[in-house]
Amino acid sequence: MGEFELIERYFKRPPQRAQVGVGDDCAIWLPTPGQALAISSDMLVEGRHFLSTVDPAALGHKALAVNLSDLAACGAQPCAFTLSLALPQADEAWLSGFAQGLWALADAHGCELIGGDTTRGPLNIAITVWGELPPGQALLRSAAQVGDDIYISGTPGQARMALEVFRGKLRLPSEAFERARLRMERPTPRVALGQALRGVAHAAIDLSDGLLGDLGHILQASKLGADIDTRWLAPVKDGETPWPAHCPDLAALPWAQALVCGLNGGDDYELLFTAAPAMRDAVQAAAQTSATPVTRIGQITAQGLRVLDPQGQPMDVSALHSFDHFA
Amino acid sequence: MGEFELIERYFKRPPQRAQVGVGDDCAIWLPTPGQALAISSDMLVEGRHFLSTVDPAALGHKALAVNLSDLAACGAQPCAFTLSLALPQADEAWLSGFAQGLWALADAHGCELIGGDTTRGPLNIAITVWGELPPGQALLRSAAQVGDDIYISGTPGQARMALEVFRGKLRLPSEAFERARLRMERPTPRVALGQALRGVAHAAIDLSDGLLGDLGHILQASKLGADIDTRWLAPVKDGETPWPAHCPDLAALPWAQALVCGLNGGDDYELLFTAAPAMRDAVQAAAQTSATPVTRIGQITAQGLRVLDPQGQPMDVSALHSFDHFA
Repeated sequence: MGEFELIERYFKRPPQRAQVGVGDDCAIWLPTPGQALAISSDMLVEGRHFLSTVDPAALGHKALAVNLSDLAACGAQPCAFTLSLALPQADEAWLSGFAQGLWALADAHGCELIGGDTTRGPLNIAITVWGELPPGQALLRSAAQVGDDIYISGTPGQARMALEVFRGKLRLPSEAFERARLRMERPTPRVALGQALRGVAHAAIDLSDGLLGDLGHILQASKLGADIDTRWLAPVKDGETPWPAHCPDLAALPWAQALVCGLNGGDDYELLFTAAPAMRDAVQAAAQTSATPVTRIGQITAQGLRVLDPQGQPMDVSALHSFDHFA
Repeated sequence: MGEFELIERYFKRPPQRAQVGVGDDCAIWLPTPGQALAISSDMLVEGRHFLSTVDPAALGHKALAVNLSDLAACGAQPCAFTLSLALPQADEAWLSGFAQGLWALADAHGCELIGGDTTRGPLNIAITVWGELPPGQALLRSAAQVGDDIYISGTPGQARMALEVFRGKLRLPSEAFERARLRMERPTPRVALGQALRGVAHAAIDLSDGLLGDLGHILQASKLGADIDTRWLAPVKDGETPWPAHCPDLAALPWAQALVCGLNGGDDYELLFTAAPAMRDAVQAAAQTSATPVTRIGQITAQGLRVLDPQGQPMDVSALHSFDHFA
């Protein structure tokens, strides 16, 4: 199967909003008048971002999901994407699965595949996605303010749990492993939440490198600090109402491992965002509108990053950063 | 050197037209009101699109050039691009050279680097570029008309000559080799010509896969045929005025090899376009405005692709396609 047949069979559909889609030198696209474009590119490499044994449909999903997650973190509505694909060989079963996972997520978000490239080479998936949003309303890393609440969506940490099982450093009951693996292989880009947070949140980022690392990007860009509460990671005691971010599988780990997964585990593609305390009701309304759980886990401060244990005592963050509890 | 330091050092500059450039989840870009976007993605893989021994500055140039060439083929004005880069290691000398070649061409075209991704992996360069043009004015593959003249820009064929020298299948005098190598390693995207051809040409494509193969894409999309004149490939006789596409190095090859390089050689990134005979003066004016030589090499017909030898006799094109004269 040659390059052109491969594109024709798996990646070409009649253009929808595009004036010209796959199959010419360029795609042609008419932007919505008055809207700004948000653009992001991510590259996934075998052995680094995914294992060779991954289900190709899950990989097709994830390759687009990590890009949609960047749009979500800016509050943009997905429009379209290009796909550049280097393949060691044209394996029809693999391509069919990959395309199925990719299209399913693309269709769910009305995000049109309008071009790209295919070539032979070590497996590499490069996607560029863009979306639209009103000018001046993008959620930026640099926009956090002192006193802002810090929130996370969903339950970060499970993707890292699955990774540690694959690495042979962690054992989990099979159902807990399947749940964790699903989070790692089929992350949910928080696109609806991101859009609902426009005008509500100040700063936002998606969690790809781990909660503390990605929060660090916000703190660096905003030149501020933060206090982080870790109670959402701890086991829930009798009679306590679980935090929205509470994950029983994560809370069942030894505390040191729960901290690493929850605070340093990457690949969750949840959102971390900040909003003024006056916006608490608006944040909850955005969570409800988008059917996405959000949890308040801390506050923006003038400087320094402090992680507080469940008793409210500052922990040694440098040790958490530098010591790999799975080593 | 980590990912963030690498980006900071080689690929981050203050945003120019972008509202947000490198360093957030997305770049933010305000399209020019009333303009359409032209978007293209190309992926370059070591060993397939370039040799490991290539000068990194030339590679940086070429990686962007092949993308700008797609914009040229649509008649779009370059705006911005994203760069996703998989690197086996962070080699500073390589990165510095690559970035220098990339920025020089980007600056020459006012094309802003606004985002991307870097990761460790087998060397892979994926660029997505976009540009602007008035709606409805894109030069498309499907727009050729019966009776149209067929033109090429520049002198296609030298890139293939250089490739065959590297493959050990061809020997050239050292100066001819240097000229050919420059065409292969530092192709000139015909951006100004493409824009000058808006409203003048009907169909256009850039020559990446070879003249006959790329012309075939136009013929397929337009459901038409073509007659191609090969006199521009032949040696110039006493007193004859050379055709603008005439290349003495190419004409000095044995005829069979000149045909393969000129008609089947890829990687030249010249434009091939069609225009009504009534537009001959306008085509020449576009060539002059853009300081780009163009040569009329044939005509669009109702069906079938015929290649005519210098005496005007049809040649066996299937043999030219299937027989590799360097094998």
